[in-house]
Amino acid sequence: MKAVILLSGGLDSTVCMSVAEQAGYEIIPISFAYGQRHSRELDSAKFVAQYYGVKRHVIIETNMRAIGGSALTDNIEVPAGEESHSDADIPVTYVPARNLIFLSYALGLAEVEQAEKLFIGVNALDYSGYPDCRPEFIQKFQEVADYATKAGVQQKRIIVETPLQHLTKAEIIKLGMANQAPLHLTTSCYQGGEEACGICDSCVLRLKGFREAGFEDPIKYALRK
Amino acid sequence: MKAVILLSGGLDSTVCMSVAEQAGYEIIPISFAYGQRHSRELDSAKFVAQYYGVKRHVIIETNMRAIGGSALTDNIEVPAGEESHSDADIPVTYVPARNLIFLSYALGLAEVEQAEKLFIGVNALDYSGYPDCRPEFIQKFQEVADYATKAGVQQKRIIVETPLQHLTKAEIIKLGMANQAPLHLTTSCYQGGEEACGICDSCVLRLKGFREAGFEDPIKYALRK
Repeated sequence: MKAVILLSGGLDSTVCMSVAEQAGYEIIPISFAYGQRHSRELDSAKFVAQYYGVKRHVIIETNMRAIGGSALTDNIEVPAGEESHSDADIPVTYVPARNLIFLSYALGLAEVEQAEKLFIGVNALDYSGYPDCRPEFIQKFQEVADYATKAGVQQKRIIVETPLQHLTKAEIIKLGMANQAPLHLTTSCYQGGEEACGICDSCVLRLKGFREAGFEDPIKYALRK
Repeated sequence: MKAVILLSGGLDSTVCMSVAEQAGYEIIPISFAYGQRHSRELDSAKFVAQYYGVKRHVIIETNMRAIGGSALTDNIEVPAGEESHSDADIPVTYVPARNLIFLSYALGLAEVEQAEKLFIGVNALDYSGYPDCRPEFIQKFQEVADYATKAGVQQKRIIVETPLQHLTKAEIIKLGMANQAPLHLTTSCYQGGEEACGICDSCVLRLKGFREAGFEDPIKYALRK
């Protein structure tokens, strides 16, 4: 019984992986080197995969940067705090169709591995800004997945699971702690430095989540707000 | 008025591009170096793009081979003639979720370029074997596209066009000739040699199409059946 997991090396995807592992699946993580501005998150993904002793960790290399259009892959400055949303509340850190691309690869891998499940750690917090994190998007992806694959044609559907969908950051952290997920190995900071900056949107959200969950964040910060 | 075109360098995608060009779109081709066993098709895509004098030709590099599972990217022998279909009539040359992955990148590019259309040269001949060439798949992709992008959220839909969908190979060739598409620059052979082999499924289908259309195929063959 296998499951493919989209593993970025961030907190959410790591907790998502812990859920699949706890459910008894043989977990096959897939990660992407896609022209991110820093490699720290991908390093975290490798550490998390090692922590779980997976047999196979697929790393897809792609110059997604070539399509352009986002602060996470272009040389647009990543905003801190209040300034980060623009353009009808879609963050400038949005990468066009990124989750669709990631899910498509993961689906191909799930088909090759004859996996039953495909886990992705999208959640309610992302809905506001990223169109391809919304439940409606995931539902539509499930439908296209059923038509895109041999597995679908042959009535062996690959089911997309989003166990974090309705959770707050604090709830995700509690779940990760309960599952003994290696949160100390994860990276969330947009800056990608040796220590997390503590001031970018992502750090602020993470620190707030740990406070609300009642746990100390095990990673190092340059500044804890 | 822009359109993104999935351009493999094969006959179908080149004719598809000629349709978009004739319709008056500024054409933006996107091609993939995805671990194909030969680079000849991609070279053809570059020549076709040059022929049309496009401003931008996006080439996505990706080790899709890392997910495994197909004769076109693995070291499985590409079959000739009758032996090529297996596994409930899905060809061994099938790459899991390939069109879904390609379309996802193209959608991202269309969003960045604020293109109105996304052209893909899938057609009736492909339906039998490749799940992700079927009209139902394209319809489902259109739906997920509407949810995956900022463009969709903001009511500026990117429309997927499949002008070759119901055409036979002979009809596609006639259309290409009428549009003065550079068919002499295209590659169809699975073997990727200096000359087309003339015996693989793809060559046989192409030669038959030209015969039925009443034209001489302008490319060179080692053997014309």
